[in-house]
Parts: sequence; structure tokens; C-alpha cells
Amino acid sequence: MVEKIKLDGRDYRMEKDSIGEMDVPGEVYYGVQSMRAAENFRITGLSMHPEIIVSLAYIKKAAAITNCEVGTLDRKLGEAIVQACDEIIGGKLHEQFIVDPIQGGAGTSLNMNANEVIANRAIELLGGEKGDYSIIHPNDHVNCGQSTNDVIPTAGKMTSLRLLENAQKELRRLYDVLEEKAKEFDGIIKMGRTQLQDAVPVRLGQEFKAYAEAVKRDVYRMDVAKDEMRSLNLGGTAIGTGVNADTQYVKRIVPNLDKITGMGFIQAYDMLDATSNLDSFVAVSGAVKACAVTLSKIANDLRLMSSGPRTGFGEINLPEKQNGSSIMPGKVNPVIPEVVNQVAFHIIGNDMTITMAAEAGQLELNAFEPIIFYNLFQSIDTLAYAVQTFVDNCVKGISANAERCRQLVEGSVGVVTALCPHIGYQKAAKIAKKALASRKSVRDLILEEGIVEKDKLEYILDPLAMTEPGIK
Amino acid sequence: MVEKIKLDGRDYRMEKDSIGEMDVPGEVYYGVQSMRAAENFRITGLSMHPEIIVSLAYIKKAAAITNCEVGTLDRKLGEAIVQACDEIIGGKLHEQFIVDPIQGGAGTSLNMNANEVIANRAIELLGGEKGDYSIIHPNDHVNCGQSTNDVIPTAGKMTSLRLLENAQKELRRLYDVLEEKAKEFDGIIKMGRTQLQDAVPVRLGQEFKAYAEAVKRDVYRMDVAKDEMRSLNLGGTAIGTGVNADTQYVKRIVPNLDKITGMGFIQAYDMLDATSNLDSFVAVSGAVKACAVTLSKIANDLRLMSSGPRTGFGEINLPEKQNGSSIMPGKVNPVIPEVVNQVAFHIIGNDMTITMAAEAGQLELNAFEPIIFYNLFQSIDTLAYAVQTFVDNCVKGISANAERCRQLVEGSVGVVTALCPHIGYQKAAKIAKKALASRKSVRDLILEEGIVEKDKLEYILDPLAMTEPGIK
Amino acid sequence: MVEKIKLDGRDYRMEKDSIGEMDVPGEVYYGVQSMRAAENFRITGLSMHPEIIVSLAYIKKAAAITNCEVGTLDRKLGEAIVQACDEIIGGKLHEQFIVDPIQGGAGTSLNMNANEVIANRAIELLGGEKGDYSIIHPNDHVNCGQSTNDVIPTAGKMTSLRLLENAQKELRRLYDVLEEKAKEFDGIIKMGRTQLQDAVPVRLGQEFKAYAEAVKRDVYRMDVAKDEMRSLNLGGTAIGTGVNADTQYVKRIVPNLDKITGMGFIQAYDMLDATSNLDSFVAVSGAVKACAVTLSKIANDLRLMSSGPRTGFGEINLPEKQNGSSIMPGKVNPVIPEVVNQVAFHIIGNDMTITMAAEAGQLELNAFEPIIFYNLFQSIDTLAYAVQTFVDNCVKGISANAERCRQLVEGSVGVVTALCPHIGYQKAAKIAKKALASRKSVRDLILEEGIVEKDKLEYILDPLAMTEPGIK
Amino acid sequence: MVEKIKLDGRDYRMEKDSIGEMDVPGEVYYGVQSMRAAENFRITGLSMHPEIIVSLAYIKKAAAITNCEVGTLDRKLGEAIVQACDEIIGGKLHEQFIVDPIQGGAGTSLNMNANEVIANRAIELLGGEKGDYSIIHPNDHVNCGQSTNDVIPTAGKMTSLRLLENAQKELRRLYDVLEEKAKEFDGIIKMGRTQLQDAVPVRLGQEFKAYAEAVKRDVYRMDVAKDEMRSLNLGGTAIGTGVNADTQYVKRIVPNLDKITGMGFIQAYDMLDATSNLDSFVAVSGAVKACAVTLSKIANDLRLMSSGPRTGFGEINLPEKQNGSSIMPGKVNPVIPEVVNQVAFHIIGNDMTITMAAEAGQLELNAFEPIIFYNLFQSIDTLAYAVQTFVDNCVKGISANAERCRQLVEGSVGVVTALCPHIGYQKAAKIAKKALASRKSVRDLILEEGIVEKDKLEYILDPLAMTEPGIK
Repeated sequence: MVEKIKLDGRDYRMEKDSIGEMDVPGEVYYGVQSMRAAENFRITGLSMHPEIIVSLAYIKKAAAITNCEVGTLDRKLGEAIVQACDEIIGGKLHEQFIVDPIQGGAGTSLNMNANEVIANRAIELLGGEKGDYSIIHPNDHVNCGQSTNDVIPTAGKMTSLRLLENAQKELRRLYDVLEEKAKEFDGIIKMGRTQLQDAVPVRLGQEFKAYAEAVKRDVYRMDVAKDEMRSLNLGGTAIGTGVNADTQYVKRIVPNLDKITGMGFIQAYDMLDATSNLDSFVAVSGAVKACAVTLSKIANDLRLMSSGPRTGFGEINLPEKQNGSSIMPGKVNPVIPEVVNQVAFHIIGNDMTITMAAEAGQLELNAFEPIIFYNLFQSIDTLAYAVQTFVDNCVKGISANAERCRQLVEGSVGVVTALCPHIGYQKAAKIAKKALASRKSVRDLILEEGIVEKDKLEYILDPLAMTEPGIK
Repeated sequence: MVEKIKLDGRDYRMEKDSIGEMDVPGEVYYGVQSMRAAENFRITGLSMHPEIIVSLAYIKKAAAITNCEVGTLDRKLGEAIVQACDEIIGGKLHEQFIVDPIQGGAGTSLNMNANEVIANRAIELLGGEKGDYSIIHPNDHVNCGQSTNDVIPTAGKMTSLRLLENAQKELRRLYDVLEEKAKEFDGIIKMGRTQLQDAVPVRLGQEFKAYAEAVKRDVYRMDVAKDEMRSLNLGGTAIGTGVNADTQYVKRIVPNLDKITGMGFIQAYDMLDATSNLDSFVAVSGAVKACAVTLSKIANDLRLMSSGPRTGFGEINLPEKQNGSSIMPGKVNPVIPEVVNQVAFHIIGNDMTITMAAEAGQLELNAFEPIIFYNLFQSIDTLAYAVQTFVDNCVKGISANAERCRQLVEGSVGVVTALCPHIGYQKAAKIAKKALASRKSVRDLILEEGIVEKDKLEYILDPLAMTEPGIK
Repeated sequence: MVEKIKLDGRDYRMEKDSIGEMDVPGEVYYGVQSMRAAENFRITGLSMHPEIIVSLAYIKKAAAITNCEVGTLDRKLGEAIVQACDEIIGGKLHEQFIVDPIQGGAGTSLNMNANEVIANRAIELLGGEKGDYSIIHPNDHVNCGQSTNDVIPTAGKMTSLRLLENAQKELRRLYDVLEEKAKEFDGIIKMGRTQLQDAVPVRLGQEFKAYAEAVKRDVYRMDVAKDEMRSLNLGGTAIGTGVNADTQYVKRIVPNLDKITGMGFIQAYDMLDATSNLDSFVAVSGAVKACAVTLSKIANDLRLMSSGPRTGFGEINLPEKQNGSSIMPGKVNPVIPEVVNQVAFHIIGNDMTITMAAEAGQLELNAFEPIIFYNLFQSIDTLAYAVQTFVDNCVKGISANAERCRQLVEGSVGVVTALCPHIGYQKAAKIAKKALASRKSVRDLILEEGIVEKDKLEYILDPLAMTEPGIK
Repeated sequence: MVEKIKLDGRDYRMEKDSIGEMDVPGEVYYGVQSMRAAENFRITGLSMHPEIIVSLAYIKKAAAITNCEVGTLDRKLGEAIVQACDEIIGGKLHEQFIVDPIQGGAGTSLNMNANEVIANRAIELLGGEKGDYSIIHPNDHVNCGQSTNDVIPTAGKMTSLRLLENAQKELRRLYDVLEEKAKEFDGIIKMGRTQLQDAVPVRLGQEFKAYAEAVKRDVYRMDVAKDEMRSLNLGGTAIGTGVNADTQYVKRIVPNLDKITGMGFIQAYDMLDATSNLDSFVAVSGAVKACAVTLSKIANDLRLMSSGPRTGFGEINLPEKQNGSSIMPGKVNPVIPEVVNQVAFHIIGNDMTITMAAEAGQLELNAFEPIIFYNLFQSIDTLAYAVQTFVDNCVKGISANAERCRQLVEGSVGVVTALCPHIGYQKAAKIAKKALASRKSVRDLILEEGIVEKDKLEYILDPLAMTEPGIK
């Protein structure tokens, strides 16, 4: 049945497809089509994301179950396929996925890699020999009722969902720690700055609260985006028309997948649309990108506020996580916020790649899913890991220099703003200019010139009162 | 009161601010601060978008009303300000907004331009002379209880909302016409193509239906994005702390603005957050970008399907809207889809600019609103105009070449797919190869080789049946 | 000859093309094809860049001269065309160019707009009536030997060249003023900062010198990019094959254009390549983008160094160009650097649009030149204007706070670095930590602990010596 | 000297730095600082690019040699360091580089990882125990005269140079095979298409020649970009001022590095500039991006021309490299061009990331080199690998369907263009419309209507003559 060869003392089996014959190492579970793909695409040298391998196994399992239900697959074969899939879901055989994440062909290579690995493992479970596709055929059985064009987008959506949930978990941790810091720093009055120029007083806690709120909004946007990942074209086969799939299979496959994963999947209302348009990945990437913007802004602020220690703003201290310099002793740098910035830049670039790839779809299919997935998965993953280190190695350990903050407020001229409702913008502006030129304080100048009485002035210039309506 | 000068026979008034004195033409409504800004920023040479001028007038009106209610503004002054604002809302005085849309300083120049124009017009209405700010002062009265930092983001959100509504109106028209086309072309069977290679049959109507669905999704995404534009930091003044604004004013200003505009505004839960973070504009731009991706994909498809007339796909005809070539007579090009593509590319680039600008915010403020607004407004506007011409000058008039579509299906090999469930993938692949090599039809080859009986074969190869589960 | 109509008391002439008939206002110079285009594309509402109108006139003039030389155009007609072109070059008739800068169709609309305006003006010069194309025909005479596909890329390159030269002029001014500042500030010692943390001393003049060098590099990159703009596909007509153009015309047209413009043009070695590939515009945009990165970095630095006045770095002062705030009196913001940042963000977004448009070319032509030109011209123009205001309203007037700079150096711990070669990294690190904790100076600690002798220490810790090898 | 611990039966050594103590596995060559970095940055889970590890080893070797020359390093220590570096250059110890490519801190983690590995290996070579930094200290000896801030940019440039050379090698192979194809296909006349509409005839060979020329231009642009990579800030140490480095070392280090690598390095004219500005990486990425645009356009064209086999353009055949579909038998897809497209999209996105990171530099340093390098190296590498498979698995094996090409030319209407100089644009346009409506050929219509005589007509309509001036 399976033609075997020995080459250089190693066992091979001969496999063939429409392109021709090929020697496949005897022990491997992938087959001729995976090997061709691996040869055609040596682009990154990296492996597929483990989560998409698991997603594929879930899909193949759901398909086997459904095919058994509707009678398009022999139950014994179905059971073997399901068992093979369960092994992959459990973390086995991942090394048998040999295709490059950046590959031509809309993911056919990856789908066939899955079909071959599952077929060969199932064959083995049934007592057959790897390569004996008369027992279980990668296309006719494992891929039964399916096409790359519905399997791969579905796998991409499942994976994105799971990675997004992980990222949200980290973001919620970030939200919590920012909230804690907001409370911890609620009593610390400091100068607010707009356009890097002294503005009016604010409490450090308010700043951290604002960060927390922004992060919460990002978590919410991801919730909205996740809904886009739950609408699947599975059952649409080649181009969304369901060609070759049993009508009952088409109806049952998504509910079955939902049942075994519990991820809330529904079948897309328009399967052609769901097969040819990848805008939902653009939307997800957009939500991730908006979050990257938020995080990078927070990281920038932390780097600014902790600038110094002696010649910068010096308002807060970041925890010291590693030596900052190979030449400057004692230097500690804001390395954790810096990695957050870099991950943000990376995500923003990835968003562009995803956008271009989505735009490039033609007619019934977008063939550029592989690059979309590679970029999107990396965006979500690096976001999650960056937030993790941000929380644990930076935000948690931030301390405030309350005294320094207080001194800056007192030395500042920006408090003059509070005088406007009392003496008018123009007069206040004159005082401000005078204060800056003379290096005197606003308070002293006002009193010197007898513009406002002392008691009233103390009340007006109380910085705490300026930080919130009605706080005092 | 107002110092007047005659220069080269022209009347000027002297105005001054903290920087110094300046001669302002006697008849203009803007003042010294607008003039400085106009001189500092000669970047695009273009004017502010009229909608943001109107938005500013609404905000200044709401502020005047609220200030009168809470007693921080004399009712007579308030009424004059309101009347001046109403004139601007009605389309007057727009030419008095002289600052460049790309300007430094978070929009202070634009805000002051509005303050000065409104002040001078209100002064005039009260019988005063332009420039006599002892009657109504741009900062103390028109800007009372406000800061650039709450006024300008609010104006940007109002404007975005209104432009988005216009864009959605055009998108809904596109949806409708695509739906109509979907019905019109429902009987036309054609080859589906994946990766530009012959796949399996589909109905032209299904393709247009898929376009319609994608457009509907974009309209929905804009609905979600619009909600982000309804949360305002108005009342937060300089940095979200509400400094200098009356506590009652802070509570009433947003409900009042909502009342006079009916746009569903609410005050942001965290005003510092809403002042310092511009991620909501990134989210809106993201929704517009996702729509651009959809539109560009549709435009690409239409250009492909109408390629020819003799040497391309030739499946559909786009209406002829202008001569295609200055040298090639009779050539008609897909100029309308092409402009849709270009607008999409433009929007995608603008999204990058908006993202970078949002990321660059520092501490209590993002100073880069002007470039965000310039790009976002242009993105939404050009989208709307591109969709308008797309609907009226292209999609509406598309006709199908039914006969050509039919011939291509019949000549194709892709229908072999339908044989897989009956004869298996491998055997079907062999037939396909043979058909291509011999230029014979799949049907003839199957019959020749006696693989499937004629009746059953007719049933299996019926292209209509392949286009939808259970259609036949 | 010319059919005339009166509608609502206004004179019209009837023109027709392959699409049908149209009433053209009697007094205008554009014709039916321009009008169709103006109706099809109402995208930005803006006008064509005046420089590309001039470029087109130069091309049409060179073509007319060449056609006369080789006998494909009657000399009398040629002379009239040349005169019409000269008028346009001189700034006349620009308002007759009515097509939107964002237009479908590779610029055919613009080319035909030029052909019609020139034809009608030339007809008039010959004593004919506008619209009497039997005298001079827009396609047969004005466009003789040409195609949109060689004329428009050529016009785009000419325009880019001229705009680049203008931008370089401004950049050279920036270089000069940065050099001057470098000299002016050469004696001011200040703390260098890496990652916003105190590092080692540097002279303010060195910083400005480094900015100057970066700007010089950008000017050079533009020189390289300009060379790409000098290689023209003119003579290639429709697809680079020169179809319909006289063989002698093909040879002479580029030298003739070069002669009348003096811009150093050569004909592309491969005309198909030069017609179908727009990568040279990507290269130019890339050079402009690299310059935007440089400028934005400088602007960021200036904003940081001038942060304060009281609670920031406060090392330099930017000239006060306008009030910074409508609410905070006396506040002066770094509005000029901020506009430089925004222009940089804009250019970076435009680069993305240009890249996508260039990538989207298909087969013999890239139809997306209009969006490339719109973005590229705006990138170069806004760069030039931003640099202009940067030089005149910011960099020129920067002053240094020498005393503040000196104090920061003295208070800093970073000078400990200079001790490493003498006491080793680890011991130096300990001193640094101790200094930070105790708020004592490094100098005092070293002396206290008797680690280095006083004289030697003064020598080692001399900040000036640290700023340049061998300076002391 | 080295404190040893046994934990769970495994040997550890205790190392400490300014942050505190840490147990380092006994057998590893990296130390405490690498370990902290590995813990702080778990972002991608990937390893450093092997080429940058090699580059670092070259730099450390050159530094050791130079330090020995100028007397700042004991010769015995220097020799041990050099030997350790040579081992790394030879491919050893790469697994000891444990830091994540995306890391905060301007590459200090990577630099310290190199310092520690080299120190420990050199200590070992000198007979010491790993961790006994009294023999050789990572900072004082291996890093002597250096800083992360000059070492890391230098390593990035060396690596980029080497990767660019590899990419150029592949591009030159692509150029060669395109040239060969140009010759092979020089006799095949086909329809040229502009805007996907039938235009005028061209030879398939001309198209491939145009591709070749575009590729050549990209190779040239990379040559220009490579020059930017040869200017090094090595010797500038912390911020370009050369602090702590011996004056003679500063002069000799770059020539020495050049001598041992032969890569043409020179020291930057302005070391501050070269330390703080990363625009040269933007320029390199820009050149790579321009190349990506070229390649993607070629890939798009090949996919279009090979579309079919039956319902598309069908002008060329791409070699069949793998099955195209898991469901549609016999389908072969253009998977190799598709991977080229995807790599191009990836590079374009990476360019955005690189641009943002370069823009974000502050004052004396850009801390975001790690993300720039990660993206740039991947851009260049994936470009090279994509071109490799493009050449070997696609372009080489392309064949032409000469007969199909000929038929399309004959059936087309575009040849009517050649009649313009003889019968005028308007008359030719009428013929074209008539031909399209009647499905008759232009030739027959002209003869029928007796517009041009048969002999002359044959001459005019000869498609070969239309493909090049003077070819016939």
C-alpha cells in the first residue's frame, strides 16, 4: 500500500499528489503537501502559532463529529479523527506543523498540514501505516465538507478570540493597579502641564485615574471587536456557497463547533461576504491599535514624570529593574515603559500590514490571511506580554516624590489662572509675566501690589481647590 | 477706547495682547490673536472646515446661555453673544476664520479666532466698536468658563459626528443600490474565482449581495464609533479639573449643548481622561478605515470583472462616464472605481497620521488635535463624496454580460469540484488535469471515461445547484 | 461650426465627445471632457496645484515645438499652442483647470483639461471661436504625439522637482541658523540625557550642531531623490512603446523639454518601466519622510528643553509668538515646534498613501498617480512651509538659560561616569547610589571617602573635558 | 571569589549588580544582567538575530585590540577576549544570548549579554571560573571604551549591511532571470492593458524587461542606502562625546573594526548626531520598502496574467508548485507571487514601525533601536527569502501562451489607436465604438467603410510595429 524507501539509512515513504511524487520521512505525520509548502515558503523560519494549531484541531474535530451525524463520514473513521484532534488540542504533535506562518495561498498549506497530520495520526490509531490514505484520506475524510477558505478564516477568528481574552485579562490587571495607584496618589498635588508648559494644579492620583479610564475603554473596544470574531463562514466551503458540503452539515457545523468550544460562535448571515471580506480583522487590529496608542501615551508620561533623577521632572520613581547603562554607573532607565512604547510602534506598523492585506482581497477570496494572522497574533500577544511586564515590573512599584511635586506647584506661575475670574485675563497675564521675569511668586506679587486681599488670595490660590470642582 | 490708525489709506485699529501691539484692519471681526496665528502658520493655505466653525459657534452659544443661567455672564452680553453665534451657525462670518487648519498649539488659535469674531460681532450688535473689548472681551466673556482644551476637542467631536452622519447616509444609499443589483443579477450564473483562478460557480447577484452586507457592517461600525464622539470634556476647562469654571456651569454646560443641538451629548465620566486622551478619534478613524478597505475591495472587483472589453474578464459593464484616454479612441476606463481606490488609500494614510498624533499626547493634553481633525474630516468627507459618485456614476448603471458569464462557466474546469463527494479528490484532480491539457470539458471527459452516468452527471454538474445549499 | 445655445440668458456652446453632447459655458476655455471629469469627481473641492498646471504647459509647449520640428504639426498651429502655453506658464488661465486633484483615471481628466484649455486659447489666438476644434483639436493637435500616460508622470516629476528645490532652500536656511546657534551656544555646558535620565555633560552648541548635521543629510537625500525625478517617460505615449508618436519626435521631445526648462531631464532608458512603475515617487516620498523624522525629533527636543518655565527642564527659551492659552494667562506654548510635529505626522501618513497607490499599479500603467501627486505635493509643500516658520518664528530666536544649565550639571550624579576608568564601574555605581540617596554631590562623597585626591578629582570631574575628546 | 550554591541539585553561582543579588546557573556564560533583562522582557519569545550576535563579537574584538594598542587593556586579557569573540563569530555560544529582540533600554540588555558571555568565556580561557569578574569584568574590560549607545547602533548597521548584501544577491538573481525571460518572450505579441482595459499591443518580453529594470533600480537604491550604514558612532561612547574613552582609542576603533571586517566603515563626522539620530535606518527601510512595492507590483501582474486557466487572462503559466486547494481538485494557485505580496505588505508595515521608533528619539539618544532592528532585519530577511522562492519556484519556470496572446490582440479594438494619426481621434473613436457594439474587428470595419486602403491598413495595424519605435 505505502511504498517505502531507505535513503542514507533513513526510512522514507513515497507520497504523491497532483504535482508528482515525493519521499516523506517515515516517522513524520505530515505528508507530501506539507513538505512542498515547507519548501516553497522559507520566509520567516518560524513556526505556526500554537493557538492556531489548536483552533484547527477543534475545527477538524467539529467537522468529523458533524460529518458522522449527517452520515458523510464513517463513524469509526470519525472517532479516530476526533481522537487525533484531541491529542493536538492537548498539545501533542505541534512540531508536525512545519509550514511557515508567512505562506502563499490563503492558508491551504496550513490546512493541508493539519489534514495530513490528523489523517496520519488517525490512520495510526486505526492500526494502519502512516501514508496509507486508503484508510483515512486527508482531503476526502479529514477535510470532508470543508475548504481552506472556510477553515482558515475560522481558525484565525478562534485564535484571535482566545488571544484577545488573554490580552484583556492583562489589561484588566493594569486597570486594577492603576486604580490602586490613583487612590494611593490621591493626596499628592502636582503641577499639571499642557504642551509641556506649566498649567494648573492637579492631583497625581487623578492622572493615574485617567490612565485607568483609558485602559477600561480599550478593554471595552476589544469586547466589541471580539463579537466580530464570532461570526464564522464555516460551512461555506470554497467560496461561501457551501459547494460539496452536505446541506445538513452546513447547518450543524457551527453550532457543533460552538458546543465543543463554548466560544459563542454563530454562522455568518452572508457566507460569501464572510469568505471574501476580511474587514473584521481590520476592525480587531484597529481596536488593538487604539489600545497601543493609550499604552504608549501612558508610557511616555511615566518616562517624563520620572525623568531625572536630578535634572528632569522627578515627580515619580519607577522601580529599578536592571542597570541602565554599561558605561554610566548607577544609571537606571525606564526600560519597562520603553518596551511598552516599542510594542505599541510594532502594533501600529502591523495594523498597516493587516490593512493592506485586507484591501488586497480579490473576488471570492482574500488570499492574504497568513500575513494578517501572523501580524495580528503578534500584535495581540506582544500587547499582552508588554502589559504583563508593565504591571508587574513597573506600575505596581511606582512611588511618588510628594515633596518635589509640592515644591514645583509652589514655584509655578500657572496658579495665576485661578485669578482670572477675579481680576480678568489681561491683568492676570501681566502678573504672570512679571512673576516670570522677577522670579517672584504670584502670591507675593499680588499682595505687593495690593490687588487682592490676603485672606481671599489664600482661598483663591489654594491648589487643592483647583483640582476638582467643589472639592473644597 | 479703540485706537485707530490709517495706513496707506486703509483703516486699522490697534490691538494688543501679551506679545505686543498689532494693527488690525478696521473692518475685520478677528483680532490680534487670530492675526498672529495666521502669520505663524502658513502651512496649507486652506481654510478651516465650515462644520467646525459651526460647531464652535454652537459651543460658544451654549456657554453663553449657561453662564447667564449661573450668573457668571451679564444677560445682555450673553444675548449678544448668542446672536453672533447664531449668525455663524447660519453661515455668516465664516471668512473671518483665518487660521490654517494645520496649526500648533492644540487649537488655541482657532478657539481665539472664534472668541474674537464672536466678541467683535457681539460688540457691534450692542452698538460698540469692533476692538472695544471693554464691552465684550474675547477671553473673559466669550470664552468664559472655557478653555481651548475643552472647547476644541468638543468641536472636533461635534464635527466628526455630523460628517459621519453624512457619510452614513451615502453608505446607506450604496447599500440600497447594491441590494437592488443583487436582485437584478440573481439569475446570472458566473464562475467564482479564488486567488484569480477558476473556482466554482456563483451567481453575480450573490456577489453584489456580499458587497452590500460588507457595507452594512461598516455603517454599523460607524454607529459604534459615533458613540465615542458623544462623550465630551466640556466643563473641564484647562486640564479637566474645571478650574475657573463655576461649579454649576460645569454641571449644566453639556446638557445645554445637547439641548440646543439634539446630538445626544453626555459629559465624560473622567474629564482628565477625556482631555488628555484622543484615542476616541483613533477609534473613529479606524472605523472609517475599515470602511475604506471594504470600498476599495469592491472597487477592485468591479475593475476586474469589467476588465476588457475584449481581452479581460468582461463579465460586467460599468457605465461610461468620460473618455478614458487622450490617445486611445473609444477607450473607456473604470474611473469611478479608481477614484474610490484612491480615496481609500488616502484614508488609510490619514489613519496613520491620526494614530501618530494621538500617540504623541503628553501629560494633561494632546496638542496635536489640529492635524487629527484636518485628516479625520478629510477622510470622512472624501469617503462620502467618493461613495456618492460611486453610487450615482457607477454602481447604479452596471450591467451584466450574462452570455459571457455563462460561457465562462461552461468552459471552466472548476465544476469538477462537485464530483469530489462522488469520485474522491484524487480522481477528480486527474480529470481536471486531463481537461486542462486536452482543452476538453470535464463533462465530456467523465462521460468518455464512463465514470459517472449521464443523468447523475447532469445533476451533479448543474452550476446553479452549486451556488447555494438546497437551491435545487 | 460651433453650435451655440442661450440658457437662462447665459451663452453656451455645444460640445460633444464619445459619451455624448454637453452644454459648455460660452466664455470658458475648458471643454466637454473637463466638465464631465469635474462632475464625476467632486472629492476634495480643491484645485490642482498651480505648479503642475505650469508643468503641463511646459510639456505641451515642448511637444508643440517638437511636432513642428518633425513635421507632425503645422507651424502656425504650433505657434499658437506655444503662445497659449506661455500664458499659462506666466500664471494665466489657471482658474480654467477645474478638475479635482483626486480623480480617477491616471490623470486623463487633468491632461484633457490642459488640452482643451490650450486648444481653445490657441484657437482664439488664431482668430477662431472657442469650441471650433476644426482649427485646433485638443487631442489631435495639442496632445499630438502624447498620451496621458507619458504626460502626467512627466508633469508630476517636474512639479516634484520644483517643489523639492523650494523645500531644500528652506532646509538650507534651517541648517544655517542651526549652525549659528551651534556657535552661539558652544560655551554652554549642560547635562546630556539618555532615555530622559541624566547622563553626562554636553555643550548646548553640540546639540544644535547635531541637528544641523541631520538636516544636511536630509538635503543630500533629497538631491539623490531629485535625480529619480529627472528620468522621464515622455515620448512613450500610451504604454511606453511610443505608439502613434513620430520616431523623430520620440527622440527629440525630452531634450527639447530639457532645453526650455533647464531642469536636467533625460529620457528613461526603459520607457515601459518608466510608464508602469511609480516607485520613484515612493523613493522621493521616502526622502521627504526621513526629513520629517529628523524635524520632528528636533521639534520634540526643543519642546522638552524649553519645558517649564518653572516646572520643566527650562534649559532654553523659545521666542514667544502668540498667547498660549485662552484661559491660562501668561502661558506661552511651543506652538511652532508643535506645528512641525504635526506636519511630520502628516507627511508620514501621506507616505503610506503614496506607497499603497504605487503598489496598486497594474500591468502597463499605474492609474493612481492623482492621489500620489496630491499627497506628495502636499508633503513637500507643508514641509517647506513648516521649516520656514520653524526658522523664522522659532529657531532664530532661541535663547539659552546658561545659569540653569550649569546648575543642573552641578547637581547631577551622571558625572560619576568619568570616574569609571579610575575606580571601576562597580565602585562608581556605589558612589552614584549613595549620592542619590543622600542628596550629596558626587564630588563631596568622593572627597569624604578619600577615594581620589582633590586635584585629580577636579581634573576628572571637569564637565567641559567630558564633552569632547581632547578639548582640555 | 565566586560564591556557589546548589539548588534542587543544580549548581548556581551568585552574581550581583546595583539592583541586588541573583543566582545564575553554574554552566551558563551569561550573567546577572542578562538574566534580569530576560525576565523583564518576555515579549516575543524569540532569539536575537544571529548576525547581530556576530556583529557584536566583531565590535568587542575590535575594541579589545584597540584597547590593547592604546594601553587601556592588559594584552593577556585582550587576547582572551579576542579569542572568545572569534568563537562567537564562528557560530559558538549563540544560545547564550537570552534577551528578547524587543527589549526596553536602547539595547543595553543585549550589550550586557554580550559583555557577560564574552567575559565569562574569556575568564574560562584564562583558567578562571565563570563569574569571577576580578579576572575579566564585563563592564570594565569587555566594554572598555564603549557604551551601549555606540556599540548597539554600530552592531545594527553592520548587521543591516550584511543582510542587505544578501538581499541584493537575490535581487540580482531575480534581475538575471527576468532578463532571460525578457529575451525568451521577446517575440510574443500581446495586448497591453492600462487600467485593466485593452490598450495597445506590447511584447511580453518588453514587460519582463520592464520588471528587470525596476529591480535593478532597487538594487541601486540599496547601494545608496548601504552607504548610510557605513558611518559609525563607535568611539562616541555614551552620547557621542567620547566620555571615558581614551583619545587614541576614539581615533583608532573604527579603522580597526574596518580592518577586521573589510566592510568599509568610517567614523561619523558628528558623533552626537550619529548617536541621537536614527534617520539612516529610516532611509534603509525606505529603500527596502520601495523594493517591496516593485516586487508586489510584479507579483500582482503575474497573478493577473496567469489568471484562469479558462476564465481569466491566461497569457502566461506559472509553474505548479503545490496543490492549490483542499477542496477543488486540480486547482493550482499563484502561491509564490502571493507570498511575495504578503512579504511586501509586511515590509510596508515594518517601515511604519521603524519610522515611528526613529521619530521617538529624545535628546542624546534614541532608546528604540531594538524594535527598529527587529523590524528592519525581518524586512530585509523576508525580502531576500521571498525573492529566492520567487526566482526559483516561480519566475524561472514561467511559460507563455503565445497563441492565446495573439488571439487576444487580434480580437481587440485597441489597435484602432494606430489609426489616429491617419484619420484623427474622433473618427477613430467612432470606429472603436462600432467595433465593440457589432463585435466586428476594427480591420473589417475600416475596409467595409473604405476609410483606408487595404495595404496601408495592414501596415498601420501591424501589432509588432506598434510595440517599439522603428522596430519595423
